Amino acid sequence: MNPGIDIIKTYLQTLQDAICLEIERLDGKSFTEDSWQRPEGGGGRSRVLRHGQVVEKGGVNFSHVYGEVPEFLRKESPTASRFDATGVSLVLHPQNPHIPLIHMNVRYFQTDAGDWWFGGGIDLTPAYPVESQVAWFFDQLKEVCDGFDTSWFAGMKAECDRYFYIPHRYEMRGVGGIFYDHQRAGKGFDKVQLFDFMQAVGNRFNSIYRYMVTQNRDKSWTEQEKFWQKIRRGRYAEFNLVYDRGTIFGLRTNGRTESILMSLPPEAIWEYDYVPQPGSPEALALGFFQPRDYLL
Amino acid sequence: MNPGIDIIKTYLQTLQDAICLEIERLDGKSFTEDSWQRPEGGGGRSRVLRHGQVVEKGGVNFSHVYGEVPEFLRKESPTASRFDATGVSLVLHPQNPHIPLIHMNVRYFQTDAGDWWFGGGIDLTPAYPVESQVAWFFDQLKEVCDGFDTSWFAGMKAECDRYFYIPHRYEMRGVGGIFYDHQRAGKGFDKVQLFDFMQAVGNRFNSIYRYMVTQNRDKSWTEQEKFWQKIRRGRYAEFNLVYDRGTIFGLRTNGRTESILMSLPPEAIWEYDYVPQPGSPEALALGFFQPRDYLL
Repeated sequence: MNPGIDIIKTYLQTLQDAICLEIERLDGKSFTEDSWQRPEGGGGRSRVLRHGQVVEKGGVNFSHVYGEVPEFLRKESPTASRFDATGVSLVLHPQNPHIPLIHMNVRYFQTDAGDWWFGGGIDLTPAYPVESQVAWFFDQLKEVCDGFDTSWFAGMKAECDRYFYIPHRYEMRGVGGIFYDHQRAGKGFDKVQLFDFMQAVGNRFNSIYRYMVTQNRDKSWTEQEKFWQKIRRGRYAEFNLVYDRGTIFGLRTNGRTESILMSLPPEAIWEYDYVPQPGSPEALALGFFQPRDYLL
Repeated sequence: MNPGIDIIKTYLQTLQDAICLEIERLDGKSFTEDSWQRPEGGGGRSRVLRHGQVVEKGGVNFSHVYGEVPEFLRKESPTASRFDATGVSLVLHPQNPHIPLIHMNVRYFQTDAGDWWFGGGIDLTPAYPVESQVAWFFDQLKEVCDGFDTSWFAGMKAECDRYFYIPHRYEMRGVGGIFYDHQRAGKGFDKVQLFDFMQAVGNRFNSIYRYMVTQNRDKSWTEQEKFWQKIRRGRYAEFNLVYDRGTIFGLRTNGRTESILMSLPPEAIWEYDYVPQPGSPEALALGFFQPRDYLL
């Protein structure tokens, strides 16, 4: 039996709970929750953690919206009149510049014309990338992908490198990760298996984040390191506001602004023409923000 | 004789000098200059002032770029093959939350098909608007416009209210000002007079900014007031990155990123679902960020 919207939605709510619990355990501080409704149909649960020990600002959102097919979906599903979209999306901005900023999203769309697809991804934005940690991160993602098809990881990593690129800066938002979209049945995979993949990605989040936090949380930081973190957060805001499809679509179609912009950094800096000193840790960091291979 | 590109350009360079001198006089700190060239033709002088007494981050840019007509101009001038664009653009982010952030731009386009137009505007973004000062500001702009045509002010104010609106916030970026574009000869005005208007707008800047600085520079501020200023700067960044035509066009067509993004705030804050206390100065400020009439 194919998993329907109710089963997928239930999984996603459980995932939101499990991730929030793990973050609260790592942080010591609790999330606050806002439930919201969309006038045209559906709604969500936005959970936010502010001024924690680990997380300076973090959001873990679940949403399920439905209604008439909007303009942007008409091209994909010309015969559909109604749609469902559900997903979990999270962004965690750390206090400590040595803990990477992390983003994950898993989502599912369907229309009443019988069309459906999955999408998602995880990507990492460290201010000070540590090569062994980045390699470990990609190893985790490869393991998840290889459980399904050994060709997936390379393609989804390349897709991520492309998606999170900031053309006007000639650099990526961070070190990348995996990204996939419009994942439909075919090539030997049915809906059950693709739903399994969504769960494999979502369920891997906690161990990845736990590793990143425990490896880096005891490092002290300087003013210069906090400054550089805020510079990188400026780039994050630039990407999300200028290029991110979800953000732009949400803002231009009357989505819930506070949930859409929850991804924006708590504090960001724009310094005119800031170029790190050659050989400095910041200059070395920049070298990571170009597509490359990392596997252990 | 009609003013050509050389005369307009010379005026704009002189304007940049005069404005920078006045700001340096008010601030005590000097601008640093970067000259840059555009591979496809032309270039500019970017001037930046950082960590001043008055200006936390400010930029006053002159540019003159030319070359083959880009895609976006083809609709306006279908028979043209080459264009010139020149202008002065400035944004001043103040240290003191009681001094308004200010933006001005005056610009001129022409093509080799004989088509040309002027555009520009001044608008004000106070974190804590003072009604009498806002009224004085609009009075100044009305006086400039009325020297040409008494119908201009109302139209240009309405255009500004529309342009600097942030739909996803249901509010304006600030209190507005005047904005005009595609100003061509006609309705009794020739090129000499429209160039005069550009100069009238540009030359009024110094007295407006001097007034705003001297009225507010001696006010002390609290942490809460600095916080609110940074929240409003977040909105400024949202507008510029999501909606501003010049910014988006520049970023997507390989403009000089650092000059385009000079307008971004030195430090901004995004606080999840921040709503000012009813009756607080911040709540009162919000009331100013909707279109209204102010004249003294």
